[in-house]
Amino acid sequence: GPAPLAPRTRSLQRGRREPGPGRQQPDSSPGDAWDKSSSASRMPLLDTSKYSQGSVLGKVNPDLASERRTASFSVEKLTAWLDGGAEQTRIRRAVVEAIESDPVFSRENQYFQSQNERYEAAVRKAVHLQRKMHEMRWTEKGPELKYIYRALSGDVAFLLHRVFMRCISVLGSDKQIAKWIPPATQYRLIGSYAQTELGHGTYLQGLETTAVFDITTQEFILNTPKISAMKWWPGDMGRSATHAVVFAQLYVHGQCYGVHPFILQIRSLQDHSLCPGITAGDIGPKMNFEHTDNGYLMLQNVRVPKENMLNKFCEVQPDGTYIKRGSPKINYFTMTTVRISLISDEAILPLMKACTIAIRYSAVRRQSKLKPGEQEAKILDYQTQQEKLLPQLAAAYAFHFINKYLQELLNRGYREVQKKNFDNLPELHAFSSGFKALATQYCTSAVEICLRACGGHGYSLLSGLPSLYTKILASCIYEGENTILLLQTARFLIKCFSAASAGQPVPPSVIYLSAVKAGKCPAKNKLDFLSPDIYSEAYQHAAVRLVSSTAAKLQDLIQSGVKKHEAWNQCTVQLAQAAKAHCHYITVKNFAETVEKLETEAGIQKIMKHLCDLFALHGIFSNAGVFLHDGYISGAQMDMVTASYLDLLAVIRKDAVPLVDAFDFTDKSLNSALGSYDGQVYQRLYEWAQKSPTNTQSNPAYERYLKPLLHNTLSKL
Amino acid sequence: GPAPLAPRTRSLQRGRREPGPGRQQPDSSPGDAWDKSSSASRMPLLDTSKYSQGSVLGKVNPDLASERRTASFSVEKLTAWLDGGAEQTRIRRAVVEAIESDPVFSRENQYFQSQNERYEAAVRKAVHLQRKMHEMRWTEKGPELKYIYRALSGDVAFLLHRVFMRCISVLGSDKQIAKWIPPATQYRLIGSYAQTELGHGTYLQGLETTAVFDITTQEFILNTPKISAMKWWPGDMGRSATHAVVFAQLYVHGQCYGVHPFILQIRSLQDHSLCPGITAGDIGPKMNFEHTDNGYLMLQNVRVPKENMLNKFCEVQPDGTYIKRGSPKINYFTMTTVRISLISDEAILPLMKACTIAIRYSAVRRQSKLKPGEQEAKILDYQTQQEKLLPQLAAAYAFHFINKYLQELLNRGYREVQKKNFDNLPELHAFSSGFKALATQYCTSAVEICLRACGGHGYSLLSGLPSLYTKILASCIYEGENTILLLQTARFLIKCFSAASAGQPVPPSVIYLSAVKAGKCPAKNKLDFLSPDIYSEAYQHAAVRLVSSTAAKLQDLIQSGVKKHEAWNQCTVQLAQAAKAHCHYITVKNFAETVEKLETEAGIQKIMKHLCDLFALHGIFSNAGVFLHDGYISGAQMDMVTASYLDLLAVIRKDAVPLVDAFDFTDKSLNSALGSYDGQVYQRLYEWAQKSPTNTQSNPAYERYLKPLLHNTLSKL
Repeated sequence: GPAPLAPRTRSLQRGRREPGPGRQQPDSSPGDAWDKSSSASRMPLLDTSKYSQGSVLGKVNPDLASERRTASFSVEKLTAWLDGGAEQTRIRRAVVEAIESDPVFSRENQYFQSQNERYEAAVRKAVHLQRKMHEMRWTEKGPELKYIYRALSGDVAFLLHRVFMRCISVLGSDKQIAKWIPPATQYRLIGSYAQTELGHGTYLQGLETTAVFDITTQEFILNTPKISAMKWWPGDMGRSATHAVVFAQLYVHGQCYGVHPFILQIRSLQDHSLCPGITAGDIGPKMNFEHTDNGYLMLQNVRVPKENMLNKFCEVQPDGTYIKRGSPKINYFTMTTVRISLISDEAILPLMKACTIAIRYSAVRRQSKLKPGEQEAKILDYQTQQEKLLPQLAAAYAFHFINKYLQELLNRGYREVQKKNFDNLPELHAFSSGFKALATQYCTSAVEICLRACGGHGYSLLSGLPSLYTKILASCIYEGENTILLLQTARFLIKCFSAASAGQPVPPSVIYLSAVKAGKCPAKNKLDFLSPDIYSEAYQHAAVRLVSSTAAKLQDLIQSGVKKHEAWNQCTVQLAQAAKAHCHYITVKNFAETVEKLETEAGIQKIMKHLCDLFALHGIFSNAGVFLHDGYISGAQMDMVTASYLDLLAVIRKDAVPLVDAFDFTDKSLNSALGSYDGQVYQRLYEWAQKSPTNTQSNPAYERYLKPLLHNTLSKL
Repeated sequence: GPAPLAPRTRSLQRGRREPGPGRQQPDSSPGDAWDKSSSASRMPLLDTSKYSQGSVLGKVNPDLASERRTASFSVEKLTAWLDGGAEQTRIRRAVVEAIESDPVFSRENQYFQSQNERYEAAVRKAVHLQRKMHEMRWTEKGPELKYIYRALSGDVAFLLHRVFMRCISVLGSDKQIAKWIPPATQYRLIGSYAQTELGHGTYLQGLETTAVFDITTQEFILNTPKISAMKWWPGDMGRSATHAVVFAQLYVHGQCYGVHPFILQIRSLQDHSLCPGITAGDIGPKMNFEHTDNGYLMLQNVRVPKENMLNKFCEVQPDGTYIKRGSPKINYFTMTTVRISLISDEAILPLMKACTIAIRYSAVRRQSKLKPGEQEAKILDYQTQQEKLLPQLAAAYAFHFINKYLQELLNRGYREVQKKNFDNLPELHAFSSGFKALATQYCTSAVEICLRACGGHGYSLLSGLPSLYTKILASCIYEGENTILLLQTARFLIKCFSAASAGQPVPPSVIYLSAVKAGKCPAKNKLDFLSPDIYSEAYQHAAVRLVSSTAAKLQDLIQSGVKKHEAWNQCTVQLAQAAKAHCHYITVKNFAETVEKLETEAGIQKIMKHLCDLFALHGIFSNAGVFLHDGYISGAQMDMVTASYLDLLAVIRKDAVPLVDAFDFTDKSLNSALGSYDGQVYQRLYEWAQKSPTNTQSNPAYERYLKPLLHNTLSKL
């Protein structure tokens, strides 16, 4: 139906004007007007031919076209390989086409919207998505699902409703599943997942909401006993949800049994008013996620029947007896799954988008001269610009490959868990924690570098970069704060190191910790540093050194009488460093192995090898101290690393645009005036700016302040 | 007059509710309601006494009060010293009080406003400021001026109007000054400064706007010959300005004489409509600066009389003869002044605010346990949290002192310039470029670290941290992009190094480059690294090594046949590194000297010495490779650095809250739910969130989408 599209939304549509990659679709309206003003006849002094030709959107800027003609590999083949095969590419493109051609899903006026408008749009899209899925015959288990959410770029409501359902499916009994999942699936209720509180995030044991079992009524009485216990942050809860899974400390007969999940109704299904004892609302403006109604929830003597406690793994019997049942280890597995699955959509894809925008822009932006007397140079030809952007591009590829590796690890782990074998869980948990931290942190910094590398225009919301940055930044915090996650990985590494030192077996991924070798890096010249064996070995050496030296410090402190927990705290800066070094090593090693396995596609293998080298050498160059510390790499060798690293920049620069084209983002998914396929950055900035409410609405300050000021009638006010 | 205050603004006032530091002002309205719900009688299981007492805003959280009781120095004395004397503190506080007690200047609903609303508020404040200055007898040259703009936190319009006036005063003839400055001062016109174009920022020579002299009419004809020539970014220009100084390439008889400034009217003084030939508007949403109408401007055959070219230093005579006059070197001096003056307000103050917010929050936020069985620990007690925040605190002090140093250098330079001695300008220019780059970059990263260190709550706009970050980020770009500035500093260093090597005299600040000493760091144990001589020497050694090795590489490349400009480009990554190392060295050295001179105030000197040590050792710890590279510092010595560095964290942690209290920010100037003096973070987050338009306005999605969905009547839409 047409109802969801408000008139003001429609007037801002630019959807039809944006041609996709490769297609040309001349558009005349604003371009024509411009051409007149810049016709060469009036200004014979300057060569205006280039821009007057290029002023039509959709026509590829010659500075980008030339970059594409010299690609050393087939972009289409690389795209297919990244997708996991040409068939996946086809499915992905079909989903993207279906979503992007539907005006309800448009994001075109996103940068001009208030928090209220973005929330309304997100709900509209979520509701419309149900129809769309039905219409397109997409299912919850089909291959399209992951591409749908990517195509929507996350700007859709009810994501926590999905978590609500997953939580019931995993932690609920069959009876509970039968009761709650069907109405939730049909949206006869909208759920949220209320875990985090004002006073507690990552440290779940500290949650303060209480659920007291009332044996007389066979109910739980839920309360928010202090302000810090107020639920805070849950998405979909501030304004939409009718129900929530609420985590609370269970008390029976005055005894606390720890945190448990309870299903609670918070708003009326009839008129959406808050239920008795419930205070709830929106937590207000955030750095991003304006489309999400992150909420607060306060409970005052809210009673729910006994059967509302999710009880697959535990139960309170009518007489108050508390029973544990089965293994709750599966909970860790869920956390692990979520951490690994967010890496791709919330960290790597935003970085790929940022690289696409910044590199395309750097190929059309000309500033200053490299050679006197010549045309101004593309900023991508400056070494400093290459050094900003190309390592981030290499990192996008590196993390894409580590993500595939983690997915496989997860699948193997899942198969084992199904066989009731939980042996791999500690390793998997350590991996998911460490890589969640490394990937989100690295990608966040990388997106910021891309933003800064675009100068003033990168700072405009219309570049798309600010919202990529403000959104990816949150990934460093949610699903476990990164420093805490790194320390969990470190705890695993220290344990394995001790075990290995004592000759006990350790998981395969950390066997390298037991093979502490002395010796020096054998590289003799700068070309030696293009050998994956050489640099992987260096990363391995650094990781072992950091783990072992921190283990030794920990040991020393404890032996000198420092209490264990205090000793641990005194080592945490170094422990976090060691955990990062471990994950960095695995990422480099995995990149090198991926390139090695890629035997058939010569052109692709060659450029991937360059990227792998760049990722590895950039890491050594930027963390030189770690490698120089014990002389494993000497100062002279570090100069070789630097030389090879800087040489690689010039090599990869030639393929930089094809390498981002291979990510295959449509203009609509980038939503960037700087990053479009045609490279018409100035024309697009100008056209988009005119749609801003600061131009379409009259000046709110003129009649009231400016006019009296200029007319000198201010004193009469 | 009351007119400027819109009713909706008034309804959101919380101004009167916020007591200043140290004062207690109980407020009962929301606290009382809360107290009832959390009364201990209903929840005997938990100790609610602490938070039910602390729920009243203005009453200092005991966790903050305890931090203040143990200060090792007098906070008030440190504040006075930082201000430059108790009299300055008095003036500053009087200005802040006058501004903050005036409701027109309130920033309380800032986080909820749209771009249009923030622009209107900024104009309202700018207009009101004129009255206020008159009322308070503040003058443009009085000691209050700098504090006024700080107290307004930059959220005020007409800043570019001031640049417009300064530009005319510096570049205009006496006649031009007499004509334009009086009406500008009286706001009978509003000016802007139109330099940057869509296609050109830092590279001014590349500007494309043209001004052609028409000898027949004795006018200049101004044009925007292509889209990239459109003026883009000038503040106050998008919606407010009636006039602008426009920079354009001057053409006379077909010959180009380079970029010159012209005064142009762009809007009618009567009805504010655009003048003929002018297209202008707002460039749309940005990452911050929503209050500023950054604008675009397109010119089509706009004619101005000959006398509108600012002609203090050059003139076009009636017959078209072009005459240069006097020295334009003073222009460089203006640029230098601007770069140095922005360091304090745009980089250091935001960092001081971010540190205040993050450190106070970290002293009241409790999460997880340090010792088993104890109360949850303040997050400031975790080594990793200290390692995030305390080096940023030390940096805020370090840059505060380097700023004083730069101001003195600037004053000396100004006195010389007045004596027509321009000898110091290259050094001053190199300093201002390098320190603008180092300070803005360092402080931006530091603010981001503070933001991330506050977890989810830091991500809320209500924390104040996101807007501090998105604003300071721009300082890395404007007034010269940082990488380009560092390379200007590097060019100066390479020149001085060559001169020094050839035995020629060099400016005092770089004499150290001529004294290249071999040798190793003499430190024998970790305490030796608390000696300023030891670490200053290490920084000096590193700077010399980086400058000399890059100079050698440059030389080698040129001797091997690489063209000069290409050789330069191939060295820029290392040149930028060398420039940073130089500025870092000077910052450390200046900090150490400042501490040494501070003889009378023992308590303050002691804590300043700790901060200086921390700043220096953090720099070595984080850039270990630079110091290890040639073995000046050995691996074993680096372990000593690390040990001393980590020890210092625990020492400074004890004074962390007093050290930020000394910055003396009022709650209103911080505008942060996390950073207020009373530390009532949860209560304040809750109260502020309730004022969000997402709570005060009805749910825009309910009737339209949620209700039909839940009632299963969606298909009927």
